[in-house]
Amino acid sequence: MNSLLLAVDLTGTFVFALSGATAGVKRRLDLFGVLVLSFVAGNFGGITRDLMIGAVPPVAIADWRYVAVSLLAGLITFYAFAVIDRLHSSVLLFDGAGLALFAVSGTQKALAFGLEPVMAALLGMLTGIGGGMVRDVLVAEIPAVLRSDLYAVAALAGASVVVIGDLLQMPSSAATIAGVALCFVLRVMAIQYGWRLPVARSKQSVGKRSSPDERR
Amino acid sequence: MNSLLLAVDLTGTFVFALSGATAGVKRRLDLFGVLVLSFVAGNFGGITRDLMIGAVPPVAIADWRYVAVSLLAGLITFYAFAVIDRLHSSVLLFDGAGLALFAVSGTQKALAFGLEPVMAALLGMLTGIGGGMVRDVLVAEIPAVLRSDLYAVAALAGASVVVIGDLLQMPSSAATIAGVALCFVLRVMAIQYGWRLPVARSKQSVGKRSSPDERR
Amino acid sequence: MNSLLLAVDLTGTFVFALSGATAGVKRRLDLFGVLVLSFVAGNFGGITRDLMIGAVPPVAIADWRYVAVSLLAGLITFYAFAVIDRLHSSVLLFDGAGLALFAVSGTQKALAFGLEPVMAALLGMLTGIGGGMVRDVLVAEIPAVLRSDLYAVAALAGASVVVIGDLLQMPSSAATIAGVALCFVLRVMAIQYGWRLPVARSKQSVGKRSSPDERR
Repeated sequence: MNSLLLAVDLTGTFVFALSGATAGVKRRLDLFGVLVLSFVAGNFGGITRDLMIGAVPPVAIADWRYVAVSLLAGLITFYAFAVIDRLHSSVLLFDGAGLALFAVSGTQKALAFGLEPVMAALLGMLTGIGGGMVRDVLVAEIPAVLRSDLYAVAALAGASVVVIGDLLQMPSSAATIAGVALCFVLRVMAIQYGWRLPVARSKQSVGKRSSPDERR
Repeated sequence: MNSLLLAVDLTGTFVFALSGATAGVKRRLDLFGVLVLSFVAGNFGGITRDLMIGAVPPVAIADWRYVAVSLLAGLITFYAFAVIDRLHSSVLLFDGAGLALFAVSGTQKALAFGLEPVMAALLGMLTGIGGGMVRDVLVAEIPAVLRSDLYAVAALAGASVVVIGDLLQMPSSAATIAGVALCFVLRVMAIQYGWRLPVARSKQSVGKRSSPDERR
Repeated sequence: MNSLLLAVDLTGTFVFALSGATAGVKRRLDLFGVLVLSFVAGNFGGITRDLMIGAVPPVAIADWRYVAVSLLAGLITFYAFAVIDRLHSSVLLFDGAGLALFAVSGTQKALAFGLEPVMAALLGMLTGIGGGMVRDVLVAEIPAVLRSDLYAVAALAGASVVVIGDLLQMPSSAATIAGVALCFVLRVMAIQYGWRLPVARSKQSVGKRSSPDERR
């Protein structure tokens, strides 16, 4: 991986780790629990991708900088929660940037390991959303990505740009920038305008509520 | 893998994906969430098996047909939920067939990768039940397989037939058919007659209730 | 792995499997569910470690003794729950011993597979805590290790002793004993004196309650 991609990847890890630590502090986990959620949110997507393509040990385990960046984000959140919490909307922006960066770098790594184009795009998407899914499972909630506004779709769009660029033999840096930009802009507009995917009609589901508590 | 086993595997993926999508629609997940649950329910068992035996990338990632079949099941469920829901008892039958097919094909793949017989049977069972377990974890529930009527036991019985057939050097197709038949029949009879495994007596547990909500 | 480490590893598997089975009986899972929780609690940490370092198939799948020990613990708990439950404080001691043994053996295996020292210690810690985390996720609870008294920190301390011993080229058996002893003593003293890690202050969190139900 070249140094641009590494910087991109570590930045993505940092912002996702912030989101994990924030979830941990809100559920009153202790310091260690907060750090675990930081690491999981920042690295689980990449670890899964690496296990699937046979790149062991996963880079998040083999390269100490991923752990360092995750712990740094966790400690900052733990000791300066009020500040991080006030930055909420900025964090959403950073999170969108992280999603874009992960989706694109994940797709490129999968292509480099010889996966088919469609599969590489799906694995890139998974790299982007995997960390947040496990973060939510660990705090016993239905993953937000399964119900939120155009999150995974934005990741998939960015990943697709990389795959199409690869098929058309565009220069890799151009496809990277275009993919990151598309994913980020889609995500920001989805937040801004409240774009959502449809929900199916089902008799069982309880009227208007959509919280995880609806089935109790 | 020969083409019979592939057909068997894809059929199993389809029916399990239906069960995942149904769980997603009932919890009012959006379209993407429903598709993720389809893919997870249909493929997680096989992915775990492949990671454990070192077959990377897992076939569910390397072969586009697994994704296609999963998404098809998700879309059908999403846009025709009323129909799928009315077919509930047929879906239970399909699900039993999927369980039988997965347990048997998973065991054969594990044997082909040189696992010991007992381990191959356990991995076959895991192939059958893994997808449903993660489906339930993602919607924040205790996996149904941990408390339901003779589900995993049926899978284990089918897997054992394959292993015993292998030890006795029976022709592989005969063991396949016998294993699938045994698992399927056991599962259908368990549903029909309400066969269940025993539950331990414990002072802590709350009387007669057995829903996931009992401890609240 | 030499026979001392194997004995250590199997003992750890047994006591962790007891903890998994106890969780299953308390939630009124059926016999199979209890056995699955035994296996998961006893082996998930080691399986994750093996997948990460590329040791496939994981030893818990390749060596029947791990399954046998796990099932034995599950059956004992299921059919003699009253006895196991009365031994509660002894089980906590055994669990501390298991944690110490797993953290140390996990670290040594990671070092043997060429991981960097810091990463080896983290993977050793993960070997110790992984099983308990998934046990709790499967019963739809926030993992206890994320909020409990000096659990993972004790594992990390024991793992660090092994890594430091390796860097100083101390004899492996001395580092093993020192690491196990440090982790075990730390854990026992944390239980005895109620040592805990700090919890961050956050406006969102609800006053004094710290149960998993606080957010409902």
